[in-house]
Amino acid sequence: MVKSKNILITKYFEGEPKESDFKLVEEELPPLKDGEIRTEGIAWSVDPYMRVYLKAFGMPLNEPMFGGQVAKVIESKNPDYKVGDVVYGHIGWRTHTNVNIEIAKKEQTGFYKLPDFQGLPYTHALGALGMPGNTAYFGFLRICEPKEGETVVVSGAAGAVGSLVGQIAKIKGCRVIGIAGSDEKAKWLKQELKFDEVINYKTDDIAKKLKEAAPKGVDCYFDNVGGTISSSVLNQMNLFGRISVCGSISAYNADEKTFPQAPIIQPAMVFKQLKMEGFVVTRWQNEWSVGIEQNLKWIKEGKLKARETVTEGFENMPKAFIEMLRGKNFGKAVIVASKLPK
Amino acid sequence: MVKSKNILITKYFEGEPKESDFKLVEEELPPLKDGEIRTEGIAWSVDPYMRVYLKAFGMPLNEPMFGGQVAKVIESKNPDYKVGDVVYGHIGWRTHTNVNIEIAKKEQTGFYKLPDFQGLPYTHALGALGMPGNTAYFGFLRICEPKEGETVVVSGAAGAVGSLVGQIAKIKGCRVIGIAGSDEKAKWLKQELKFDEVINYKTDDIAKKLKEAAPKGVDCYFDNVGGTISSSVLNQMNLFGRISVCGSISAYNADEKTFPQAPIIQPAMVFKQLKMEGFVVTRWQNEWSVGIEQNLKWIKEGKLKARETVTEGFENMPKAFIEMLRGKNFGKAVIVASKLPK
Repeated sequence: MVKSKNILITKYFEGEPKESDFKLVEEELPPLKDGEIRTEGIAWSVDPYMRVYLKAFGMPLNEPMFGGQVAKVIESKNPDYKVGDVVYGHIGWRTHTNVNIEIAKKEQTGFYKLPDFQGLPYTHALGALGMPGNTAYFGFLRICEPKEGETVVVSGAAGAVGSLVGQIAKIKGCRVIGIAGSDEKAKWLKQELKFDEVINYKTDDIAKKLKEAAPKGVDCYFDNVGGTISSSVLNQMNLFGRISVCGSISAYNADEKTFPQAPIIQPAMVFKQLKMEGFVVTRWQNEWSVGIEQNLKWIKEGKLKARETVTEGFENMPKAFIEMLRGKNFGKAVIVASKLPK
Repeated sequence: MVKSKNILITKYFEGEPKESDFKLVEEELPPLKDGEIRTEGIAWSVDPYMRVYLKAFGMPLNEPMFGGQVAKVIESKNPDYKVGDVVYGHIGWRTHTNVNIEIAKKEQTGFYKLPDFQGLPYTHALGALGMPGNTAYFGFLRICEPKEGETVVVSGAAGAVGSLVGQIAKIKGCRVIGIAGSDEKAKWLKQELKFDEVINYKTDDIAKKLKEAAPKGVDCYFDNVGGTISSSVLNQMNLFGRISVCGSISAYNADEKTFPQAPIIQPAMVFKQLKMEGFVVTRWQNEWSVGIEQNLKWIKEGKLKARETVTEGFENMPKAFIEMLRGKNFGKAVIVASKLPK
């Protein structure tokens, strides 16, 4: 008899998520059916999108919170999977899962056996070698189409996606300016990740600092935050600049009544003939391995650093989620099991 | 001896332009040099872009206000032009002009002999068969890429560009919803131009009315106004919707201190994976005749109506400009000479 610990979501978030919005329960798993496998979680992901998709997609309450995890197969009634295989699955906040492969694969962000990570940690399947990695790879390269020598601004620069975007921009020969929320993050981005400049949006005059950091103007903007910061960046963009809109963290805790306002962006869009595109990474799911393989190669070559902020203990997921939304993480926020499956 | 009446711009606008920002003067034209022609104005254009480009482009003060006119050649020392030819030129608010063709052609919006308008009025060279016509043609078709059966929203719908965009969208088999500023405009757009629905942004609840008018959501948005109205439209767009940003009239009277705020658009951009592009019509100057010829054909076929709001008398240009910015015009605002050149 196998029991799973599950973390249920019990209500739609209002403002900042609270630990009391979640509930830890135990579930006894039924015996496996033919074609199913049973997994035990190794690591779980907390991501900004979870803050908004819950309500936006009308996810059911009092069910395990949705999200991706890396897990080991501990029992199998499916000939394609054997015990010990390591998989990625968007199967939710639960330690043990009976997985119907067919249903799991229909999930937008997929279910698959991890490729050979060449010795890199499994947790990367939740970061640089997973959804955030492809978000950075495709979302930046395909929409911004950066050219060597151009100036690139990335907001949410110290996060899972932003920190990769800035490094990919450096690989492509661009001048890179990050926008982040602390001097410690700025120091990391400049010293370790070789960003050219970093603006601390909490303490700097963004427009002024950006003018100094981007004397030739901004050609590409990878936007994780939206709102006032983004309006400010758009005003300093060059003719035919490109903006990739990945997220709008600045608005994630807002409800309809407190929906944030910002200086309007249409004048800059017209004068500079800018192109802005929002995206969800699943649009590139048919090319998923292209991004993963390239990021893996860059990591092995030492060109891409995939820092992770690791929280131990499945039961700490709500806390890790809340802290990630508060910007406590450097790079990707992951949760690892206190006790790894054998 | 030929005298020109010129309307000078004497100061950068603050808030709404005033008649006192302009000054009517007389200028004695020097004799023609070889290669030059002398023109006499037939009709002049007032356009929303004039409100913002003056300062944005640092145009000189105490010079004739910039803008396009239709004029007749009354004297020529250039073998390519003969007396009686009718030209379009971006040569400013002046009745008579010694034109150096080479310099005039370098102006972004050009200088050229009018093609055969097949009996249509010359004033159309300032509207449906000129810059606004191509703004509608290229700016809508190339950026929005509308498909038959899709729902199109156009703001500034009763203006020179908006009224054409809506009709072109109808020609392409789309459902068309206009946003305009009076019931009289709404009536005109629905009854004469066959828009499917029109929202009066001054009296209607835009979000509510749009939900009723676009039950299947919005696929394309041609944006002349920016700001709160546009944020509202974006929230009702469909997956992979396209937004063509032509202008942001709602912000044209704002200065840096009163720069308007609006609900941020990044959440909609991401969730619906929208593409937004701002443009200036001169990007299509190498294809200029393509748009003009198509619009001419549609007008002759009765598919495109090119209404104009005509003010008589060159000296009334400032007033006509101010009234156009206040939205008094239906379709294109033009000024015609009280006395036509022989």
